[in-house]
Amino acid sequence: MQYIAPLAKLIEHFRALPGIGAKTAVRLAYHVLDMEPAQAQALAQSILEAKAKIGYCSTCYNLTDQDPCQICAAEKRDHSVICVVEQPQDVAAMERMRDYNGVYHVLHGALSPLEGVGPDQLKIKELLARLTDGTAQEVIMATNPSVEGEATAMYLAKLLKPMGIKCTRLAHGLPMGGDLEYADEVTLSKALENRREL
Amino acid sequence: MQYIAPLAKLIEHFRALPGIGAKTAVRLAYHVLDMEPAQAQALAQSILEAKAKIGYCSTCYNLTDQDPCQICAAEKRDHSVICVVEQPQDVAAMERMRDYNGVYHVLHGALSPLEGVGPDQLKIKELLARLTDGTAQEVIMATNPSVEGEATAMYLAKLLKPMGIKCTRLAHGLPMGGDLEYADEVTLSKALENRREL
Repeated sequence: MQYIAPLAKLIEHFRALPGIGAKTAVRLAYHVLDMEPAQAQALAQSILEAKAKIGYCSTCYNLTDQDPCQICAAEKRDHSVICVVEQPQDVAAMERMRDYNGVYHVLHGALSPLEGVGPDQLKIKELLARLTDGTAQEVIMATNPSVEGEATAMYLAKLLKPMGIKCTRLAHGLPMGGDLEYADEVTLSKALENRREL
Repeated sequence: MQYIAPLAKLIEHFRALPGIGAKTAVRLAYHVLDMEPAQAQALAQSILEAKAKIGYCSTCYNLTDQDPCQICAAEKRDHSVICVVEQPQDVAAMERMRDYNGVYHVLHGALSPLEGVGPDQLKIKELLARLTDGTAQEVIMATNPSVEGEATAMYLAKLLKPMGIKCTRLAHGLPMGGDLEYADEVTLSKALENRREL
């Protein structure tokens, strides 16, 4: 015997979370046992509530606790511009910037034939359906600057351009505050290729 | 708006756990939203169950889901030797070693006047009560090799020796697999002081 059953079970559940190793799982479990009962109850409750209350917006497929989501429902948002991202986390990143006033569309992944992710596994049909009413004029491809993200952006652009929709892509280049010396070659080559006149 | 309310609350709860920073808390929360509902339910349930089922053994004050705990109830354990530790985690560490067959007593802390922890805040009265029936012959002080742990061991020894109980302390010295070059001075000085004849 090393850990009693309910403790071992709790450790195992923490261990299954991303980035939580064996030692951290044990530390977290002991911490929970040390908590006030009401505090532990609140932690468990917040997990259940998040799962119960949060779903996907039927328009943009971002996480939401109301349908349509706050962003899709906002009248002061510019509904003629749709920013396409891979994950709900990316919407949060864009919103942190505070410079974007359009709406979003969350694909829930990127094309990756090797991992069996084709167009049907992403919310691409749903994006096309949104574009039929003529509100959207521009779609900004904000998929990740990775092979899969690039491929997805290219694929979508090929699909949307014939519909008369302006397709743009977030710029690639040197990250602000970075150091030229330490930039990887692909980034540097992109930065050179996309150089602007001053 | 950055995170919807139930998500923000979940992030905040994860953030309150030890060793979980802002970014990890966000990652964990999104992971929970990605889980199968049954899986999330099981995680929440394991927290509630651990809190509900686990209490302290009325003999040794280790965490247990039965009273007395498995160790105190085991007949093949040597009840004449009590190993005194600071925390339930320390019992788990001793048990991992598999070399100890006695029983335990968990103090739930160490003497620390600066932090307001005196003898009354620890399970010392309870240890003394256990010793009155004459079963225990030896008490091994396995408090941490820290200032507080040492002080607690000294304090207990002073208390127990007049009762005719043999008091011992875990050895201090170089950790196995360590390197003399990198040993701190206090450890090295303890290792020299406690040198054995070969």
